[in-house]
Amino acid sequence: MESWVDGQPADALSLKDRGLAYGDGLFETIAVRDGKLVLLEGHLQRLALGCRRLAISADWAVLNAELQAYAQQLGDGVLKLIVTRGDSLRGYAANPSAQARRILQGSPPAAYPLAHAEQGVQLFPCTTRLSEQPLLAGLKHLNRLEQVLARAEWSDTEHAEGLMLDMSGRVIEGVFSNLFMVHDGALITADLSRCGVAGVMRGQLLFQAESDGIATQVTDIRLEQLHQADEVFVCNSVYGVWPVRGCGSARWPVGPLTRKLQTLARALLDA
Amino acid sequence: MESWVDGQPADALSLKDRGLAYGDGLFETIAVRDGKLVLLEGHLQRLALGCRRLAISADWAVLNAELQAYAQQLGDGVLKLIVTRGDSLRGYAANPSAQARRILQGSPPAAYPLAHAEQGVQLFPCTTRLSEQPLLAGLKHLNRLEQVLARAEWSDTEHAEGLMLDMSGRVIEGVFSNLFMVHDGALITADLSRCGVAGVMRGQLLFQAESDGIATQVTDIRLEQLHQADEVFVCNSVYGVWPVRGCGSARWPVGPLTRKLQTLARALLDA
Repeated sequence: MESWVDGQPADALSLKDRGLAYGDGLFETIAVRDGKLVLLEGHLQRLALGCRRLAISADWAVLNAELQAYAQQLGDGVLKLIVTRGDSLRGYAANPSAQARRILQGSPPAAYPLAHAEQGVQLFPCTTRLSEQPLLAGLKHLNRLEQVLARAEWSDTEHAEGLMLDMSGRVIEGVFSNLFMVHDGALITADLSRCGVAGVMRGQLLFQAESDGIATQVTDIRLEQLHQADEVFVCNSVYGVWPVRGCGSARWPVGPLTRKLQTLARALLDA
Repeated sequence: MESWVDGQPADALSLKDRGLAYGDGLFETIAVRDGKLVLLEGHLQRLALGCRRLAISADWAVLNAELQAYAQQLGDGVLKLIVTRGDSLRGYAANPSAQARRILQGSPPAAYPLAHAEQGVQLFPCTTRLSEQPLLAGLKHLNRLEQVLARAEWSDTEHAEGLMLDMSGRVIEGVFSNLFMVHDGALITADLSRCGVAGVMRGQLLFQAESDGIATQVTDIRLEQLHQADEVFVCNSVYGVWPVRGCGSARWPVGPLTRKLQTLARALLDA
């Protein structure tokens, strides 16, 4: 489907846009089912947090109306929303009166092999580490060279995702997913206050698990703790949950809590 | 002057460009005098290093021809060159056969107050820290949110530049400049193997100083060492050298080595 820029069909962007110049913006990748934006509230909350931290002022009423109209036309697929700080002249200083720019791009539904969800996936152990920047941690901003470098580390189809650690060797996330592990019945995921993207599905699964009486922990995870986990899975708001069967020499069974969270994720995506 | 995209006049860029999506590219800001690209070799060397590290393959003969032709038309001003990995579909994985995209943008000569060079400048002590990522350190890549955040910390005209430290508190650089200090007759600048942009003017001044028998050091700099420096200056390949008179509570005189390097920089820019 044709893209929109600020509500108008377009296939090109001003060369002065700060999204190009500096990665000065944010994005969201939203599943669309039958014209409906899945987990929209979570996506808008993260976007709003990003806009506050970067001091980008978006017109939320207009943005919301455009998202709804675009999703209606897309029907089923994936909507990528980019919000940039808009145009500027040379130099890092932003024009305080610049209008944020809204870019909507649609694509067909993601076509991952069914086996990823059913039998589970292998993670590639990426050597690219995530740098620590608390001012940007958690946000889905446009500065994504670390993910580009990590994703370029493997090209085989045996690995569906990669595992990324931070500079101190802590387990953080996948390249395009968040990661959970299960230990003694508790659901554990990384603290993302120094780096990482706080995924919308991650937030939903933490919330749902707590509501269901499952113990949850958001904390620092060492690689040896991950290796000793009872179960491991990755998630995002497009594919839901994939059990993780292995990473490097480590192996994990596909366990009951993973299947339970997978069912929860499927319900969220189908809602 | 009108911009060029891949050698053609253009004011817009494909929405699929990975420079927008991920900041997946590099840039150079090159002074142009009388149709001539100033310090071109240094800019191309840094760009080539960036392309190698990011595995972006550029067509150097075509790029060089475009730069020359564009600079001829620009006459006097500043040429910004952006090289991106080109288009891709959804996801971080790059199309291995994607062609790098070349974007050339021209603007009038930089119009900084003469006093910056003559009397020196004040640096704003930025609280935004540079994160440490050896894979990207030294490169002038498009992931520049830290510079955007740092530059947004001041809006007065008293501060011409900002001082940026890394996460460990080491003195690294300005927001759009490199920084040198003088101590006991030696010229000292930060080691940029963890973060920072290895500026073309920085490289030239280190080389010229050594050729002139001035002792140079590229090393870690603590803030208290900077405060005790005999002289401090910032530099880049557009404005040359600005003496630094103060930052926060610290004060420095404008000293003889700064003036000597400023003269060297001016000669490089006027060559």
